[in-house]
Amino acid sequence: MSATWDTLFINVHLATMADGYGEIRDGAIAVRDGRIAWLGPRAELPAGALESVRAVHDGGGCWLTPGLIDCHTHIVHAGNRSDEFEARLNGATYEDIARAGGGIMSTVRATRAATEDELLAQSLPRVASLLAEGVTTIEIKSGYGLDLETEAKMLRVARRVGRELPVSVATTFLGAHALPPEFAGRPEHYIAEVCAMLDTLAEQGLADAVDAFCERIGFSAEQTERVFVAAQRHGLPVKLHAEQLSDQGGAQLVARYGGLSADHLEHLSADGIAAMARAGTVAVLLPGAYYFLRETVQPPVAALRAAGVPMALATDCNPGTSPMTSLLLTMNMGCTLWRLTPQEALAGCTIHAARALGRAHDIGSLAVGKRADFALWRIARPADLSYAIGFNPCVGVVNAGQWRAPAI
Amino acid sequence: MSATWDTLFINVHLATMADGYGEIRDGAIAVRDGRIAWLGPRAELPAGALESVRAVHDGGGCWLTPGLIDCHTHIVHAGNRSDEFEARLNGATYEDIARAGGGIMSTVRATRAATEDELLAQSLPRVASLLAEGVTTIEIKSGYGLDLETEAKMLRVARRVGRELPVSVATTFLGAHALPPEFAGRPEHYIAEVCAMLDTLAEQGLADAVDAFCERIGFSAEQTERVFVAAQRHGLPVKLHAEQLSDQGGAQLVARYGGLSADHLEHLSADGIAAMARAGTVAVLLPGAYYFLRETVQPPVAALRAAGVPMALATDCNPGTSPMTSLLLTMNMGCTLWRLTPQEALAGCTIHAARALGRAHDIGSLAVGKRADFALWRIARPADLSYAIGFNPCVGVVNAGQWRAPAI
Ligand SMILES: [Zn+2]
Ligand SMILES: [Zn+2]
Repeated sequence: MSATWDTLFINVHLATMADGYGEIRDGAIAVRDGRIAWLGPRAELPAGALESVRAVHDGGGCWLTPGLIDCHTHIVHAGNRSDEFEARLNGATYEDIARAGGGIMSTVRATRAATEDELLAQSLPRVASLLAEGVTTIEIKSGYGLDLETEAKMLRVARRVGRELPVSVATTFLGAHALPPEFAGRPEHYIAEVCAMLDTLAEQGLADAVDAFCERIGFSAEQTERVFVAAQRHGLPVKLHAEQLSDQGGAQLVARYGGLSADHLEHLSADGIAAMARAGTVAVLLPGAYYFLRETVQPPVAALRAAGVPMALATDCNPGTSPMTSLLLTMNMGCTLWRLTPQEALAGCTIHAARALGRAHDIGSLAVGKRADFALWRIARPADLSYAIGFNPCVGVVNAGQWRAPAI
Repeated sequence: MSATWDTLFINVHLATMADGYGEIRDGAIAVRDGRIAWLGPRAELPAGALESVRAVHDGGGCWLTPGLIDCHTHIVHAGNRSDEFEARLNGATYEDIARAGGGIMSTVRATRAATEDELLAQSLPRVASLLAEGVTTIEIKSGYGLDLETEAKMLRVARRVGRELPVSVATTFLGAHALPPEFAGRPEHYIAEVCAMLDTLAEQGLADAVDAFCERIGFSAEQTERVFVAAQRHGLPVKLHAEQLSDQGGAQLVARYGGLSADHLEHLSADGIAAMARAGTVAVLLPGAYYFLRETVQPPVAALRAAGVPMALATDCNPGTSPMTSLLLTMNMGCTLWRLTPQEALAGCTIHAARALGRAHDIGSLAVGKRADFALWRIARPADLSYAIGFNPCVGVVNAGQWRAPAI
C-alpha cells in the first residue's frame, strides 16, 4: 500500500451501481480524505491494508450503496396545505379553494411572510426525514417567492440546510414557477423580471441550476426559452418541469439547451424522447405527484428504457401536489405504479439522480475517486429497498467519509 | 380532588375521537393506574390538580390523540418476497413464480422452517416500524403455518411481541388462510383440521378471534361457516377476509355470526352493506393491498358511510400483497385513493379499529376510564396525519400511562 486509508468498511455487500447493481458480495471499501480510495472483494484487499488503516468499520453483513440522491424537491417552503387537502375531501371544489385564497399562492404568501430562520426551522424536519433514509444529496428549488427578495431568501435557506444538516445541497432557481398576483395578465413582464432576478442570484452564487414550469397553467415554451437564454448567459445548466399535464414540447426545448433533466413527463412524446436521448438529458420521474393527484396517464417508461434515456426518481416534495418526504417510498411507487424494476429504481436515486444534477463524476456510484457518500442497509438484497412500503432499513450513513446514525 | 393522579399532560390539544375529532384546544388529560382519570380544557382543571399530581408532562403545544391501532396484520412471518417482486418486474409471470415455488407457499415454508426465536427476531423490526408512528395496539394473525405446530408457534410469537415491545397484541387464528400442499384437492378435510387446531389453540388461550379467507382462491362460504361454528363453540369472535377479489357473500355471512369485522370489501354488495350495518360489523379497509396489487375496483366508501357502517383502516402488513409497515401512510392512501376524509382516516385507526377488535370499551378514544394509550404529534392540525406522505411527526407515545420515545 502506497498510502494509509482513513477508514475501511468490511463485512459489507456492495451495490456499486456502476453497471446494474454492480454487486460485490463480501466486499470492502476504503476512504481517504473523504473520497473512495479502494473498493473490491474483501479477499482482494492489498496485503497489510487492515493493519495500516486508521479505523475499520464492521458492516455486520449489511448492504452498502451510494448515498441516495433526491434530485427534485421544493422542500424549502412555509406552511403546508393539509387544510385544502381536508377541505377537498369534504367536498370543496378547486374554485372554492381558490376563492378562499388557497392553492400555490397560499404557499407563496406563507413563504414571503416567514423570516429566514422560520423558513429554515420549518424545512429542517422534512429534510431530516429524507436523511433518515440514507439520503446524502438533495436538490432544492426556489419558486414560492416569485419576487427577488423571497427567491433569494429561499435559496439562502437551501444553502443553510446544507450547513445545518449532513447533506450536500444543490440549489435551483425556479422563478418561473407561477405568475405572481403582482404580474396578473402580464406574463411577459414577469419573465423579464425572472431574468433580472437571475442576474442578481447568479452573481450571489445562490443558484446551481435554473428550472421553469412549462405548462398551459405555467409558462409557454417561448417564455421558458427566454429564461434558458438568461441561464446560458450565466453559464448555469437548465432543467424543466415538462409535459406533466400536457405535451408542450418542453422536453425538446430543454434538450436543445443541453438540459440536465426534463421532469414529470407523463405526456412526453416520441419526439421528446428522441431529443432527450440525443442530448443525454435525464428523465426525472415523480411518482408522488402522480399518486397524490390521482393521475392516470403514466410516463412512457418502456419507451424511455428502449431509447436509453437515463431515468431518475425523486420525491418532488412540495405542499401542493406531493407532500412526500420518503425517497424509499418513491422507489416503491416507481416500481408499483410504473413498473420500473428495483434495479432501475435504485439507479434512479443514485447514479441517474447524480446525472440529473450534473454531478455523476462526483457522486451516485461507488468508484475510486468519488465522494465517500454511502448508505448502509440491513436488508437481504437490494430489491428490498423498493419492495418494502414505509419501512426504513437504513442503519448508518456516511457523508464524505464521516459516519452518522440515520436519524439526526 | 378526591385522589392523586399519577401523571397530568398539559399544553396539548386533544383529539379525543369521541365524536368526530372531538377537539379540545389547550386541553389537559390525567392518568391514574394506567387509565384516563380526567380530561378537558386546561382552564377547567380542578383546583389544586397541578399541585397534587405526581408528574406533569408539558406537551409543548403538540396534539395528543388516542394511540393508533393497526387492526389487521400478518406481521409475524419469516422471510420476505422481494425476490418475487423483482422477478415480476423483470417479466416473470405468476405461473413462472408458482413453478419456482413462490407465492404464499414460500412464506409458509419459511415460517415452518424458522425457530420461534428466529420468527420473533424477524418480526420485531416490522412491529417497531409501526410503533414509531404512535401505534399502541396491533392485531396479529396466524395463517402461514397451516399446521397445528406452526400456527401455534406464530400465535406464541405474536404474544411474545406484546411482551418484548410496548404494544398490546390481539391475536387471530387464521388457519383457513390457504390450502396447504398436504391437503391438495381435499379442502373439506383441511377445514376439519382447522376446526381441530382451533380446539387446541383455544384451550391454550392463544387466539383472541378467528378469521378466514373467503374467496374463489380461498375457501367457500360453506367451508368458512364451519370454521365460524367452531369459533362460536369456543366463544371466540369472528372476522373475515371478504369480497376482496369477488363477491362471495362473505359480509352477510360474517354479519350473521355477529362478526367484529369484514375486511378488504372491494367487491362488497348493497346486501352485504345492509347486513353489516344491522350487525354492527366494522368494515376494515386495506388500501395497501389495493395499491400494491394495482386493483381498480374500490370499496364502496360512500355507501358504507351512508349506511353508517364504521370504517377502519389497517396496513394488512404481509409479504405477498401489502409489505407495508406504516399506518400513517395507510391513512394517506385511504384519503388519496378512496376519498376518506382525514377525520374518517384517523377514526379508522383509533375508535373504529378498536371496535374491529371488540375493544371499543377499553381503547380507541380518549374518555375517562379507558386505557391511557396516547400518541403525541408535532402537527398544526389532525389532518396533517393523513396529508403527509412518509413523514413521521410522532414525538412521544404513552402506553397504559407510561411515556416512551417513538423509536424503540
Ligand atoms: Zn416540481
Ligand atoms: Zn389480510
